[in-house]
Amino acid sequence: MSGHVVALCGGVGGAKLAHGLTLALPPQELTIVVNTGDDFKHLGLHISPDLDSVMYALAGLADPARGWGRREETWTFMGALEGLGGESWFRLGDGDLATHVERSWRLAQGATLSAVTARLCAALGIGPCVLPMSDDPVRTRVLTDDGWLDFQEYFVHRQCQPRVRDFMFAGADEASAQAQVLETLGRPDLRAIIICPSNPFVSIEPILAVSGMRAAIQSVQAPVLAVTPIIGGKAIKGPAGKMLAELGFDVSGMAVAHRYLGIIDGFVLDEVDEARAEPIPGIEIFTAPTLMSSVDNRLRLGREVLRIADTLAARSSV
Amino acid sequence: MSGHVVALCGGVGGAKLAHGLTLALPPQELTIVVNTGDDFKHLGLHISPDLDSVMYALAGLADPARGWGRREETWTFMGALEGLGGESWFRLGDGDLATHVERSWRLAQGATLSAVTARLCAALGIGPCVLPMSDDPVRTRVLTDDGWLDFQEYFVHRQCQPRVRDFMFAGADEASAQAQVLETLGRPDLRAIIICPSNPFVSIEPILAVSGMRAAIQSVQAPVLAVTPIIGGKAIKGPAGKMLAELGFDVSGMAVAHRYLGIIDGFVLDEVDEARAEPIPGIEIFTAPTLMSSVDNRLRLGREVLRIADTLAARSSV
Repeated sequence: MSGHVVALCGGVGGAKLAHGLTLALPPQELTIVVNTGDDFKHLGLHISPDLDSVMYALAGLADPARGWGRREETWTFMGALEGLGGESWFRLGDGDLATHVERSWRLAQGATLSAVTARLCAALGIGPCVLPMSDDPVRTRVLTDDGWLDFQEYFVHRQCQPRVRDFMFAGADEASAQAQVLETLGRPDLRAIIICPSNPFVSIEPILAVSGMRAAIQSVQAPVLAVTPIIGGKAIKGPAGKMLAELGFDVSGMAVAHRYLGIIDGFVLDEVDEARAEPIPGIEIFTAPTLMSSVDNRLRLGREVLRIADTLAARSSV
Repeated sequence: MSGHVVALCGGVGGAKLAHGLTLALPPQELTIVVNTGDDFKHLGLHISPDLDSVMYALAGLADPARGWGRREETWTFMGALEGLGGESWFRLGDGDLATHVERSWRLAQGATLSAVTARLCAALGIGPCVLPMSDDPVRTRVLTDDGWLDFQEYFVHRQCQPRVRDFMFAGADEASAQAQVLETLGRPDLRAIIICPSNPFVSIEPILAVSGMRAAIQSVQAPVLAVTPIIGGKAIKGPAGKMLAELGFDVSGMAVAHRYLGIIDGFVLDEVDEARAEPIPGIEIFTAPTLMSSVDNRLRLGREVLRIADTLAARSSV
């Protein structure tokens, strides 16, 4: 089957499936929409952690061991910055810094985040279209037992220690969904929307919160399929499991599927959780091996979610 | 003898004598006034090459082999920036970048260049007071056979190839001399002003061009002594020799001494140029070994210029 696929994703975990879809599809058939709720200003630089994770994954530059940032990274900048008495709680690798500096100065010259992202992706030889969810600022904040925290303050500085109670996406109501995203969601040849295995609270829900985005996704005829970020009761990476527990949910793929009620038509549980599958009205549950520990696994899962989406599409058109 | 010494300097060459004076004097007896005419904005960062050279020299961080930047430097940022299609004509080391990022964001927050410099110097354990010539922008431009060029365009991008005809220090008339510099020049215990062996055209004359600076220096009672940046008909580093020749001057210390007519009371030629010494009305000519190939040499020259300055002071008070 052909047609255009839109993937929604956050950082590292979701970027792996975005990479798998990149390997599975011709570049002109894939658009990747990335969360920018984690974006922040640090040392005067505009940092877009999820856009960076996606770009590095797609360009083969991601560090496989550390799980974030660039491979073959060095840390001379951080050492020197500490020597100058600078703020060192947010670790910036020397190579990673090139992305932040280049992006920041292009933005300062008046380019949109979309235009800067397109330019960086072109330089890195990335085929599919990678788009920020919005060119306007949206900032995820986390309500914790210590009060409201900016996302990076919670995530990096406080290392997700404070117990979470709620989230807000400051600016989301005023932010416009990126125009090309809306245009792509409206394509008559839309094949599927894939919600990557990202954190539902702080990676996917900020995307859905941008003005006009949820409605645009809900209005498509094509199937909307999400892949679990939880396998065997644990998040592979990041605080999704901790957040589910602290908010009183099961730490399970099924709990994530419930978050997407009204948005998705299908949900892919990991195969190890097959016994935990339960019916949810309007959401068909599938299982697949979702752990992407190798590039081969990414491609295999990319192909599998496309196959499942096409199955859903075929059924709904019967 | 005691009293307060003010050194004027540009980058690498002058910074060596600034370091020698730092080794020769208690920190509270030395103020180093640094050229900022080479400052420029690159990739959105505020770069102050001469302030950096002075700080790195005084903190023992300067790279002795390369002659600029920091020792134990890495270049991951530049490689990554090239991979992103960024501007790579100006080489920014990973450690060096910490200085530019930290300075730029403090300036963006409203701090003066003086305040930022003080903060960086404190973090690096630098004793003497290091001050920019002005907190206002002054930008050296070079008139060449290819027209007017910004200094870094001439110096780095064009590698000093175009033949020079003239210089201008844009903004110098409107720029105020840094207040603490003027205050220090007015101290009753001023012992000497030392013009370090820097390029007269693009390191020292921008300092003298700042509104009020030349008059303040001319009004002091203390001796003003310059040290040659030319030894045996050649500049040790940089384009001073090439500039002298292209402007029709001898490539000699004596030609530099003539540039400082009306400013200095004494000039230190290198000992190898003793035979080329000629009388200049109002300027006493001395000789010394001025090559600073080791830290010991820096200290020795620092002590020697102080001894010469004190000799000049003793004579004028007779």
